[in-house]
Amino acid sequence: MSSAPKLQTAGDTTRIVISVDAMGGDRGPAAVVAGLVASASKNAEIAFILHGDEDELGPLVSRQASLAGRCEVRHAPRIVTMNDKPSQVMRNGQGTSMWSTIESVKNGEAAVAVSCGNTGALMAVSMLRLRKLPGINRPAIAGLWPSRNPAGFNVILDIGADVRADAEDLLQYGIMGVSYARNGMNIARPRVGLLNVGTEEHKGRAGMKDAFDLMAAHAESGQYEFVGFVEGGDIPSDRCDVIVTDGFTGNVAIKTGEGTAKIIADFLRDAFQATFLSKMAALLALASLKRLQKRIDPRRVNGGVFLGLNGTVVKSHGSADATGVSSAIKLAFQLAKTGFNDRLAARVANAAAGRQTMDMTKDGTSG
Amino acid sequence: MSSAPKLQTAGDTTRIVISVDAMGGDRGPAAVVAGLVASASKNAEIAFILHGDEDELGPLVSRQASLAGRCEVRHAPRIVTMNDKPSQVMRNGQGTSMWSTIESVKNGEAAVAVSCGNTGALMAVSMLRLRKLPGINRPAIAGLWPSRNPAGFNVILDIGADVRADAEDLLQYGIMGVSYARNGMNIARPRVGLLNVGTEEHKGRAGMKDAFDLMAAHAESGQYEFVGFVEGGDIPSDRCDVIVTDGFTGNVAIKTGEGTAKIIADFLRDAFQATFLSKMAALLALASLKRLQKRIDPRRVNGGVFLGLNGTVVKSHGSADATGVSSAIKLAFQLAKTGFNDRLAARVANAAAGRQTMDMTKDGTSG
Repeated sequence: MSSAPKLQTAGDTTRIVISVDAMGGDRGPAAVVAGLVASASKNAEIAFILHGDEDELGPLVSRQASLAGRCEVRHAPRIVTMNDKPSQVMRNGQGTSMWSTIESVKNGEAAVAVSCGNTGALMAVSMLRLRKLPGINRPAIAGLWPSRNPAGFNVILDIGADVRADAEDLLQYGIMGVSYARNGMNIARPRVGLLNVGTEEHKGRAGMKDAFDLMAAHAESGQYEFVGFVEGGDIPSDRCDVIVTDGFTGNVAIKTGEGTAKIIADFLRDAFQATFLSKMAALLALASLKRLQKRIDPRRVNGGVFLGLNGTVVKSHGSADATGVSSAIKLAFQLAKTGFNDRLAARVANAAAGRQTMDMTKDGTSG
Repeated sequence: MSSAPKLQTAGDTTRIVISVDAMGGDRGPAAVVAGLVASASKNAEIAFILHGDEDELGPLVSRQASLAGRCEVRHAPRIVTMNDKPSQVMRNGQGTSMWSTIESVKNGEAAVAVSCGNTGALMAVSMLRLRKLPGINRPAIAGLWPSRNPAGFNVILDIGADVRADAEDLLQYGIMGVSYARNGMNIARPRVGLLNVGTEEHKGRAGMKDAFDLMAAHAESGQYEFVGFVEGGDIPSDRCDVIVTDGFTGNVAIKTGEGTAKIIADFLRDAFQATFLSKMAALLALASLKRLQKRIDPRRVNGGVFLGLNGTVVKSHGSADATGVSSAIKLAFQLAKTGFNDRLAARVANAAAGRQTMDMTKDGTSG
């Protein structure tokens, strides 16, 4: 179950190997290969195993000088579509590029898996093949969202692994999110908030108060600061670094935010094309506007991370283009490089042990 | 229970009376009075009953020529704070400006109530004093959100009246949202979507499929088009006009969207102050940027409407300034003018009768 970096040695260069699903995305394998090219040309430490139809992938890869000797094509004849049900893929998914992509992490050839495919199916295959970490009830998908914090992003989870989550699950999400923020974003003592409809303690759904109490009780041993309930408006704020919620609410929140960012970007484009003066202005402000666009571009935060499995899986947007794929690969590389998954597993094990001790103390037993 | 416009006759002018809570907002009564002034100077058909401390309100109002003869101050010595629990306000709320504001609608002096106060308390007092419409299980708060539709806005509900909603409640939200879109936004046959984590029929929480089936079955008699499941990204889209969800999810979604719009606006301001050229550009594009700002300004969509009561209540943001208050008053005026609440009540009664007929047919009984 070790997720230590899987290395490829080529002459003087030691490379971290990423397993990539070429076939799942809306834009087809050409966009994925373009993403690999973008990453490979920026990062000499990276190598790939690319899964999919080799007749289609071979020519795409061999054409790219930057991928020479750094991208092995692994033939997988079948494709998981966006309409396939997770349960079907779990039963009949062998031979698909998605299954093969996860398999390379399971058998230790690659450090991290990346796929643009069907989220539900990817989670199902990941759970089936990689298995949950000891002590984890529900794995979660963690996303990054632009924020006012120095890091520029906040972690939010779960954004869609499971529509349900009880108080214990929310505590585990918190622990996993803290581990992600600590290792992926270098925040020594992350601040954690529990998403609710108000910040007062009496507000929210049944069970929210239980989760609040669990997360508060675990803060010291978990080395995080619990800021209590936060609201939707805090997801892009600097009130906390990690926002914890169930996968239904998290998914709706993230997609609402993305849709809002997109409509504003479109309105902004309209505004600059409205008059002669505004067109001139757009030219003058080009550099600043490009920087802004980069700051709020959803493709830059592309890549939900599956947490709570014996291995790391990065889920890229189905509609990701080369920039999006490259951004997901960059995240996968960073996580592999820090040995993130082993550290996460240790945190979860510690938390479980701590809870057991607490329960024993409570019971007055010590067996 | 009639919510037909309450009129004030003053010389040649017949005015619609709005009952306004002066005391609940974060910015105090001065911001509220400034909002009344902005509305009164634009709209000759409007008059107010303003509730709060008369020693404080008297001077603020008498100073304003545009309010002369159009704003009665109604003394209420007590204030509901943002920290008061709804249950306390229900028991001990008499004498507060909020209670008095609702009372003016209940006793027929005013057509619609407007308050910037504590949402939970306002809903509790509204339910206690106005009572639910016959056939309504849970009242809802409907919000407007900027969208790509011709109207410029979509209706979303519930955004925070109740954290729970079962399939029947979601159907009722749909019916009420359709009535709001039809009367408030002139959309003859609104398109309704049910918010979920994916558009496939098998996705989502337990109970979502039941709500889906109920809403689909009622579409023809309810004179709306049911577009099925929609995602967070569709809230600002043109896929539908009305988005239905529970009050927990809706509240988080709206606040996430607001937070995202705000952070982008701040980033945009940074971008224009970054360089000399970008500052010049901002000057050139001033008119276009102001138009953009107006288009995405959350204050312009200020005002959640409480639906499902014997009387209309508009909840303004607690932090609303004069522009925000004026925008909530404008919405209240439009709803009063169209006799919205009577029409909504008729729709709900029809739907209940229709469901009864369906049930009877199903049971084979006809008593």
